[in-house]
Amino acid sequence: MSSELRKDPVTGRWVIIAGERGQRPNPFRHYASTIEGPEPCPFCPGNESLTPHEVLVYRPEGAAGAPAWTVRVVPNLYPALRIEGSLDKRGEGLYDLMRGIGAHEVIIETPDHAADPTTYAPRQMQEILNACRERMTDLLRDARFRSVLVFKNHGAPAGATMAHHHSQIIALPIVPARIEAELHGAAEYHDYRGRCIWCDMLAQEIADGRRLVAQNADFVALAPFASRFPFEVLILPRQHEAFFGSITRQQIETLAPILQDVLRRLKLALKDPPYNYVLHTAPPGFGHPEQYHWQVEVIPKLTELAGFEWGSGFYINPTPPEEAARHLRDLERFMDVPEGHLLKGEAPRG
Amino acid sequence: MSSELRKDPVTGRWVIIAGERGQRPNPFRHYASTIEGPEPCPFCPGNESLTPHEVLVYRPEGAAGAPAWTVRVVPNLYPALRIEGSLDKRGEGLYDLMRGIGAHEVIIETPDHAADPTTYAPRQMQEILNACRERMTDLLRDARFRSVLVFKNHGAPAGATMAHHHSQIIALPIVPARIEAELHGAAEYHDYRGRCIWCDMLAQEIADGRRLVAQNADFVALAPFASRFPFEVLILPRQHEAFFGSITRQQIETLAPILQDVLRRLKLALKDPPYNYVLHTAPPGFGHPEQYHWQVEVIPKLTELAGFEWGSGFYINPTPPEEAARHLRDLERFMDVPEGHLLKGEAPRG
Repeated sequence: MSSELRKDPVTGRWVIIAGERGQRPNPFRHYASTIEGPEPCPFCPGNESLTPHEVLVYRPEGAAGAPAWTVRVVPNLYPALRIEGSLDKRGEGLYDLMRGIGAHEVIIETPDHAADPTTYAPRQMQEILNACRERMTDLLRDARFRSVLVFKNHGAPAGATMAHHHSQIIALPIVPARIEAELHGAAEYHDYRGRCIWCDMLAQEIADGRRLVAQNADFVALAPFASRFPFEVLILPRQHEAFFGSITRQQIETLAPILQDVLRRLKLALKDPPYNYVLHTAPPGFGHPEQYHWQVEVIPKLTELAGFEWGSGFYINPTPPEEAARHLRDLERFMDVPEGHLLKGEAPRG
Repeated sequence: MSSELRKDPVTGRWVIIAGERGQRPNPFRHYASTIEGPEPCPFCPGNESLTPHEVLVYRPEGAAGAPAWTVRVVPNLYPALRIEGSLDKRGEGLYDLMRGIGAHEVIIETPDHAADPTTYAPRQMQEILNACRERMTDLLRDARFRSVLVFKNHGAPAGATMAHHHSQIIALPIVPARIEAELHGAAEYHDYRGRCIWCDMLAQEIADGRRLVAQNADFVALAPFASRFPFEVLILPRQHEAFFGSITRQQIETLAPILQDVLRRLKLALKDPPYNYVLHTAPPGFGHPEQYHWQVEVIPKLTELAGFEWGSGFYINPTPPEEAARHLRDLERFMDVPEGHLLKGEAPRG
């Protein structure tokens, strides 16, 4: 295709979908995902004393010889924010600042140092997502916090510094710029059309089909129309809901396999790429839950993005999302379809 | 210092200035800036036929044995945008798109393959900036274009794919998100206070002094209060002006040395880091030139930023800008101060 300028319908951000630049020499540089972490690994069973004391732990039921825990959540040893104290909001001439109050926790996803989300048992991924939900709900009891970010960095180029698989939770006394922009764009759309923009997007994407990656009873994974990055994937719940904290047990059982499925497709398609995923949810107490739709954004870190993108907020994406989605869909024949996972074209439940 | 949450006064973006995380193991990974470009180098004299035909060329005055040119501007061989055609703006359900119309040009900064902006003769840097101004002015005669981005990627981690020093110009039929956010924030400030936010910021920063990096008669280089990245530097003209295209000959003669000075400090402080710089200017025909202040943003690419920053628009910066600025100022004793360059504390001209 020739290149197109596409506008993200939520944030208003424009992106160049530059099909032809895919012909450039070496557009995706090779990245090693492996990390040399500290020895011994503080996230491995037996080394629990090397981390701060856990704030949440799931233990396996009974069986002798089982590991002592399945998922552990601990405060980050090098936290970007401190949990104690008042915010002390103040000005300094024309600048605004406050103390770096917040929570920064690490979800140790598995006792197995070598395990990977693409190989976790389905139950393991459900426990991880449940731990996210539990910690988010707990942290939001603290009235100082205006938002909670849940994210995973996999591989050094994606910002990870430990090899043992983990994700992170940051609770903040402010709402990040991207979430603010989403709330703003979604409010404008809702004011004009009286509907949730992501509900409309889901309906259009399911009818269109070109950007669909996978779907199951409760979730749809798609390549966003104005993808900033090659092979960016968005996972949306079919049912409108602003807050991730409201996720049901059944939805955790269907979110886990579609997230694993997307990560498997990316691993197969892109040779175990570094990646990030980020959970987007409405801020606590958000007054217009009809306007926001929680979601999971998965971004493989493939290209050293031209740094002007940092300065301009303008992205050049060499891979049209339709091509990325087709490629990811076509991998189905090489994959074991997880239990409860519907192939494209099958009717959703309910 | 303990960590702080700081708000960018223009865009409203919050950032964690996390002083203590500077203690983490290996916060700045080592990056090689070197690139293995194609052989032979299409940007070297004698290989002009390997690039598209130049749109601008500066030739040295007379002297036998001089190179055939000093600065050459050519269309990008792999353009992200095409110059020919109409925009064909249209909708696709709830999405908006247009054809990828625009200009994408490369400024070959020097005939010398091994030369670097920190070692260019002062005259060379002036010619480069003058070429930016000339090309910007020419491109904005095209009524389809709403903005022009001038930027430089140096080193592979900053997105460069050629070793021979060059910068780039992209003309776009839209205004990028970051510039929109700046215009919006600056308009709010101007509505409330009746003054340009950057003029106020300059006055406050000069009086405060902690974040100053360098200054001369016409420009001030400083570490922004809410820096997203370690050693981020902003160069602001002292005199209010919205459009870079209005830069005077005298200002080009003083911008060139302060930009070289900043790049020399970063090279000394950070061992030849990869970096980007981006020129920010008001969109053509912008109706409120009293609100915007053109500027150059310089960002060394030191850290693999945690990818959740892509998703959240929320940054963690391990280096307080006051520390970065002090470190960059202190390098003065190791440097030859360029001609016309004033040390901190000397009175500006005029």
